[in-house]
Amino acid sequence: MEINELVQRVEDFRIARDWKQFHSPSHLAAAISIEAAELQEEFLWKSPSEVQSKIADPVQKVAIEEELADVLILALLLAKEINSDPSQIILKKLEKNAVKYPVEKARGSSKKYTNL
Amino acid sequence: MEINELVQRVEDFRIARDWKQFHSPSHLAAAISIEAAELQEEFLWKSPSEVQSKIADPVQKVAIEEELADVLILALLLAKEINSDPSQIILKKLEKNAVKYPVEKARGSSKKYTNL
Amino acid sequence: MEINELVQRVEDFRIARDWKQFHSPSHLAAAISIEAAELQEEFLWKSPSEVQSKIADPVQKVAIEEELADVLILALLLAKEINSDPSQIILKKLEKNAVKYPVEKARGSSKKYTNL
Amino acid sequence: MEINELVQRVEDFRIARDWKQFHSPSHLAAAISIEAAELQEEFLWKSPSEVQSKIADPVQKVAIEEELADVLILALLLAKEINSDPSQIILKKLEKNAVKYPVEKARGSSKKYTNL
Repeated sequence: MEINELVQRVEDFRIARDWKQFHSPSHLAAAISIEAAELQEEFLWKSPSEVQSKIADPVQKVAIEEELADVLILALLLAKEINSDPSQIILKKLEKNAVKYPVEKARGSSKKYTNL
Repeated sequence: MEINELVQRVEDFRIARDWKQFHSPSHLAAAISIEAAELQEEFLWKSPSEVQSKIADPVQKVAIEEELADVLILALLLAKEINSDPSQIILKKLEKNAVKYPVEKARGSSKKYTNL
Repeated sequence: MEINELVQRVEDFRIARDWKQFHSPSHLAAAISIEAAELQEEFLWKSPSEVQSKIADPVQKVAIEEELADVLILALLLAKEINSDPSQIILKKLEKNAVKYPVEKARGSSKKYTNL
Repeated sequence: MEINELVQRVEDFRIARDWKQFHSPSHLAAAISIEAAELQEEFLWKSPSEVQSKIADPVQKVAIEEELADVLILALLLAKEINSDPSQIILKKLEKNAVKYPVEKARGSSKKYTNL
């Protein structure tokens, strides 16, 4: 699906509920953080193998997907709110990251660019 | 742009750097939280009007877009990692939210569904 | 109460439940983030006056205090886990912040030290 | 050190810089989330043994302690802001947790109380 069509679906959901009034950029950013934390909670206290079992279980996987979807939905709403095109900001950030993390230096390393 | 093409671009970036080895679901979820916090920091201590001025300034807006893009990029990588289609999980979550927040009850209210 | 006595109470609670095995520094840091998000959720979508009403209501205030307490409890457990004295690290950080934010420059300003 | 003396030190730091005006409960809660994320970033992409090496290195440990101190400092400021005593809210939460997580059920388990 076109990402802009997804943005439209999310926006339609919001318009139908008249929620734009609550969605200041600060509140949306706070909400993204909160949903990101709920996503993290799905994995909290779990070993890597317990995480894999959870993902392999269709019922439990849905819980993870729902939290991840909440993060994406709110991120798309914030993009809409500040009038930015999600595809463009992603592609521009990938370009910038390509400069910060050149393949020859960053390959196989988890270091932050400031330490490369 | 198709969201799956975006996922492919993000995945290509990762493959070129051989970073998949670091991207366990738990680590990706932690990284999403961290980027969401950096996004929030763009608005920290600011009044609503200061936030609006920041968004209206093209240079400062880029900083916000970059943090938002980081959240989206990592969320797409986690979707890829757990083998989920971003469009589908978003649409399914919107359907579920439509049940939790029926238009007639949720319209114009910022209450959590548990309090509606 | 002495902060070290509080640390001991928190540690006793943990020992009685044999939870130290789950409390790696990474997991504790993730848990602190999650509790911090739950604390934020208490204020989500609320205007400053709605936040003040919530704090002024004894029942609703308890919910805020419980989330704040969770953040403090986990932060004390992480200090214990890495063998650090909470009072000392707080006092040392205040000293460092006093250098980053000298009174004459920082007074009445919400700017980050990098922009002062 | 008495926790209330620590609160006083943190408060003195704030008064000297006239920062109370920025410290609404919502902003402080956002700031706690942001600092909690910076704390998490210290451990991001690291294996358990890499985390242990980092903690064992005195220089790198200081970076962790500083982020942890920031979380504690802001949590104490929020307690002050909402007029709550940190010791009391911690002790009350431990009591409540003791009911949610009775020793006989919770011992050796990382399950959430809702699943015990």
